[in-house]
Amino acid sequence: MKVGIFGAGQLARMLALAGKPLGLEFLFLDPASEACASEVGTHLQGAYTDHALLMQMAEQCDVITYEFENVPAETIDFISAHATVYPAPKALAIGQDRLIEKNFLRDLDIPTAPFAPVDSLNDLENAAATIGYPAILKTRRLGYDGKGQVLLRSSSDLVAGWDALMGASCILEGFVPFRREVSIIAVRSVSGEIAYYPLSENHHKGGILRVAKCSENDPLQQQAESIATRLLRGLDYVGVIAVELFDVDSHLVANEFAPRVHNSGHWTIEGAETSQFENHLRAILGMPLGRTSPLGYSAMQNFIGGLPSLKELLSLSDVHPHFYNKAPRKGRKVAHATVRAHSPEQLSGRMAHLAKLASLTDDS
Amino acid sequence: MKVGIFGAGQLARMLALAGKPLGLEFLFLDPASEACASEVGTHLQGAYTDHALLMQMAEQCDVITYEFENVPAETIDFISAHATVYPAPKALAIGQDRLIEKNFLRDLDIPTAPFAPVDSLNDLENAAATIGYPAILKTRRLGYDGKGQVLLRSSSDLVAGWDALMGASCILEGFVPFRREVSIIAVRSVSGEIAYYPLSENHHKGGILRVAKCSENDPLQQQAESIATRLLRGLDYVGVIAVELFDVDSHLVANEFAPRVHNSGHWTIEGAETSQFENHLRAILGMPLGRTSPLGYSAMQNFIGGLPSLKELLSLSDVHPHFYNKAPRKGRKVAHATVRAHSPEQLSGRMAHLAKLASLTDDS
Repeated sequence: MKVGIFGAGQLARMLALAGKPLGLEFLFLDPASEACASEVGTHLQGAYTDHALLMQMAEQCDVITYEFENVPAETIDFISAHATVYPAPKALAIGQDRLIEKNFLRDLDIPTAPFAPVDSLNDLENAAATIGYPAILKTRRLGYDGKGQVLLRSSSDLVAGWDALMGASCILEGFVPFRREVSIIAVRSVSGEIAYYPLSENHHKGGILRVAKCSENDPLQQQAESIATRLLRGLDYVGVIAVELFDVDSHLVANEFAPRVHNSGHWTIEGAETSQFENHLRAILGMPLGRTSPLGYSAMQNFIGGLPSLKELLSLSDVHPHFYNKAPRKGRKVAHATVRAHSPEQLSGRMAHLAKLASLTDDS
Repeated sequence: MKVGIFGAGQLARMLALAGKPLGLEFLFLDPASEACASEVGTHLQGAYTDHALLMQMAEQCDVITYEFENVPAETIDFISAHATVYPAPKALAIGQDRLIEKNFLRDLDIPTAPFAPVDSLNDLENAAATIGYPAILKTRRLGYDGKGQVLLRSSSDLVAGWDALMGASCILEGFVPFRREVSIIAVRSVSGEIAYYPLSENHHKGGILRVAKCSENDPLQQQAESIATRLLRGLDYVGVIAVELFDVDSHLVANEFAPRVHNSGHWTIEGAETSQFENHLRAILGMPLGRTSPLGYSAMQNFIGGLPSLKELLSLSDVHPHFYNKAPRKGRKVAHATVRAHSPEQLSGRMAHLAKLASLTDDS
């Protein structure tokens, strides 16, 4: 069986590495000339809107999926007419627009930060008056890793904030006084079977995820599963979804969802019985899902901007590196490492070593 | 870093799958036009004795290794002059010839079955008179998976046995009344660091391995480690070695060693903290070795001749398939699956399901 993927970055690469042992083959479409997934499958280099390439994918692949949510709607519309695409276009369309996403969450009774659409400075002034400060002004589309957003601390930030986003359609979100950032990775198969991973506890810096830790038996697991279930069913979703959540005094508030495998679930490669990557493939191929139980205690450290020394990394106990073979560039995710441990204390100690290594090359 | 491998079969494929997350690239030399490792690296198709291809490997690769022990001596001699090759040619030369291998083991005080060289029917008659029956006549070179050997039950089998091996240089080995077949996978790095996996308990049928089970805390672990240590040091070995052993009333008798990653160690992919494949790469690259501790209880089932249904396989709990993408052919290893469990009883139950699935397509 052959799986087509839009995008040939590290997520596509890890999907393919998980799929090879299942006997799967992979075809990636990505406009980049150097794409790190091309080592583990066939890379079609070209535009996402190139109908000839899209037809090639449709003809060769049993199922088509994507590693990022900003695949053009036109692409998805075209390919859906010729091939099976999971997750379905609806999730993509909703996930691509923060305003539509927030409205959708609200319609499913999933708590969110207060929000309002902003299409002018006047809108922004009105929204800020209702929502209060601090608040975050975000572009509705194409934001990731903290890009396309501005923190507004008081009314004196309004004009500069609006100017910074250069007239894009925006959404103003109230600041959520959260205690923790967590996420839940969940997966739903063609048959409707659902599985959930233990919550990830996430640590960001500068809007970029640095550390994600598996939080087994988290007191908020049930709340998170209930939110994920409503989303999966509401979207008639097939594949892995990641829902980013704020823990506000033990109540979960949804921030956003990603209709794909997610950085906060990378620890599942070594830290769970079945990884998020394998389960995404199982789900979209109509196979039974694998168990998601954790294996010991585990966490993941991202490497941003530069690679650590492989030798130093491998000298740490039970550390499993994942180099993406991407050229280092400021602020770019170039690798991660998972560490496993027998106790929370051992995990903390090991993570401290990893964080130190990561800080040596982190340029962001 | 780039690793060159002689052979592009499933062992090379699994080495590459283990090496990609470490950021490694792979170059395979294999005369076959269809080689299943070619999906995860560059496949040079050509003869092992093609000097131009060998020079290409030497120039491009940081280190060169092999997935099978029958690489021609001429090849190894040539490439060794131009590149770093691990394990060193000595292990290969010894491992390629059963008589030299047995003499080498004896010189290291490692117990073996009684044996004698056989180069004529007359030799065979004399050897059989000393060693007794049953005995096994084996070609000195190029035997694997039970090929190139004949069981002799009495003197009336001598002529037919000798004829069956068509005048090849042989060795006669006394039959060892073993209780179990086990193997130890051990690994030694460039720096001399050694690590051992828990013993594998192996079940063959028709000379082909069917099942290997991780035997944690095996009472013979220390004996096996002592044998492996003598071998690794005696060969000044770098990389993974597998030593096949007979358990004869709790005393280990060495059968043979394989200077490479080994089928009886495939359970280490999911069943150990670090797989034999990753540790082979770490060893030959001069990196620190990874821990070899088991993760729960695990075992491996081979699939011979035909593939099971992926869907049925994935419906079994905690089963991890490894399809090699090789065309099915009678008696050919085309896949294996590892199963993990929380207890020996759970493992037995799960292995029974797997064995049943394997028997459906096993044609040998």
